[in-house]
Amino acid sequence: MKVGIVGLGLIGGSLGLDLRVQGLEILGVSRQEKTCAIALDIGVADKASTNLSLLKEAEIIFICTPIKAIASTIQQLTPHLPPETILTDVGSVKAKVVAECSQLWHNFLGGHPMAGKAEQGIEAAEKNLFINTAYVLTPTPNTPKEILNKVAEIAQSLGANLSICSPETHDQAVAWISHAPVMISASLIHACMQEREKTVLELAQKLASSGFRDTSRVGGGNWELGVMMAQYNKEELLKSLLQYRQSLETIINTIQQEDWQNLEQILKSTNQERSQFLD
Amino acid sequence: MKVGIVGLGLIGGSLGLDLRVQGLEILGVSRQEKTCAIALDIGVADKASTNLSLLKEAEIIFICTPIKAIASTIQQLTPHLPPETILTDVGSVKAKVVAECSQLWHNFLGGHPMAGKAEQGIEAAEKNLFINTAYVLTPTPNTPKEILNKVAEIAQSLGANLSICSPETHDQAVAWISHAPVMISASLIHACMQEREKTVLELAQKLASSGFRDTSRVGGGNWELGVMMAQYNKEELLKSLLQYRQSLETIINTIQQEDWQNLEQILKSTNQERSQFLD
Repeated sequence: MKVGIVGLGLIGGSLGLDLRVQGLEILGVSRQEKTCAIALDIGVADKASTNLSLLKEAEIIFICTPIKAIASTIQQLTPHLPPETILTDVGSVKAKVVAECSQLWHNFLGGHPMAGKAEQGIEAAEKNLFINTAYVLTPTPNTPKEILNKVAEIAQSLGANLSICSPETHDQAVAWISHAPVMISASLIHACMQEREKTVLELAQKLASSGFRDTSRVGGGNWELGVMMAQYNKEELLKSLLQYRQSLETIINTIQQEDWQNLEQILKSTNQERSQFLD
Repeated sequence: MKVGIVGLGLIGGSLGLDLRVQGLEILGVSRQEKTCAIALDIGVADKASTNLSLLKEAEIIFICTPIKAIASTIQQLTPHLPPETILTDVGSVKAKVVAECSQLWHNFLGGHPMAGKAEQGIEAAEKNLFINTAYVLTPTPNTPKEILNKVAEIAQSLGANLSICSPETHDQAVAWISHAPVMISASLIHACMQEREKTVLELAQKLASSGFRDTSRVGGGNWELGVMMAQYNKEELLKSLLQYRQSLETIINTIQQEDWQNLEQILKSTNQERSQFLD
């Protein structure tokens, strides 16, 4: 089977490495000649080109570009394809992407392999990146069943843990566990910097250790990703943040009212509830 | 020199281990016979007792009890002591403790070695715990200079990084980097659990990974410590949380107004500012 990959970065490159090991023929497309050369060199693809027409014989094509380029890539790609070709993407937001891309191509299935790391680009690509990571597929009522089966099979062949849900359920879930934490964490850094007492701010900067490091990590990360999350998942992110603001208010109130029994109850609950997310 | 330690847990125990290596004679007091036996067994103390009168010959005494027991321990201890004995504590909040204890004993100096770890108790005590960690001393205008010098010398002999500031500056700084993050992080877990759609909550719990893990860590930690921070550092914690609420509001507004340029500006700043806390 021939598999196409457009966008040979961390995800696209790692996909190529794993699928080639399985004996699939990988056709890779990048905008940059240099990336194509690296892809061939490190074994990401069997053939690589800057021209989308390379993919005309692929049975299934993974669109691994940044979110904002997914739809336009499909528009440029589809004139080269027979109608049975399966297209799937790897974007981290799904409702908008799926709505747009399903209009452009009938055999489209939204996907989100959640195997990030700090490094980006083809140099960061690695074998076995997807083992034990989540891979979410987001069919709509109109998605042909055999396409879902096909992509699910590939996702599981990578060692990933498959989840299947609607694009909307995906977006609300990632708003909770990924997008809202970025804004919550960034607000902490932003708030600290508003401290007017220079000696306090300097001491805080000197004393900050593991608690501050962890709570501020995602808010001090990749700002382009942060803005992109907000742009593409605005409604679900706002739902989470408005609920978060209420929860913060509840905790502030218990402290203002010195309601230590209630505060203890809340912190006992969050202690126990956290393990339901991470076990 | 004879050094007393009351409260042989993680901090008291680790202090004893390091100071004994330096050749000081360590007199340890715990409420529990069993802890005294362990202290002698693992080399935390040269002599150990459940009776505070053991410390009558100590030149300097570290009060390493939980915060709520510091003042009452000093009240029980001081009848045994000559007036020149130096007392210092290791509590994580300083203004209230220093105000109370300075009334009880003239030669008192507030201190806060910031060398925590998840495990508690004498079993968790270890050598070199304080190396490269912060040790804050919080003299008041009435603190005798020679006491500050003495305790500072011991703190530095442990390999700790010394900071000297007022109790109030300490409390506002730790509110920013330690106490507020607990409430901010707990609010995230609390908010997630308010999600009404069962499929969304279950998927969020399944998909949660490093971003959620880090942002929720301190909010899902030791609830007794969390309540204690709020009780003893209420005013400074509230100052931080109210400023935090404003920063959160600023970010929510940029998203509601789709002001992506401003959001990018904020996230770029927090990315750069974070390194001023953790380098």
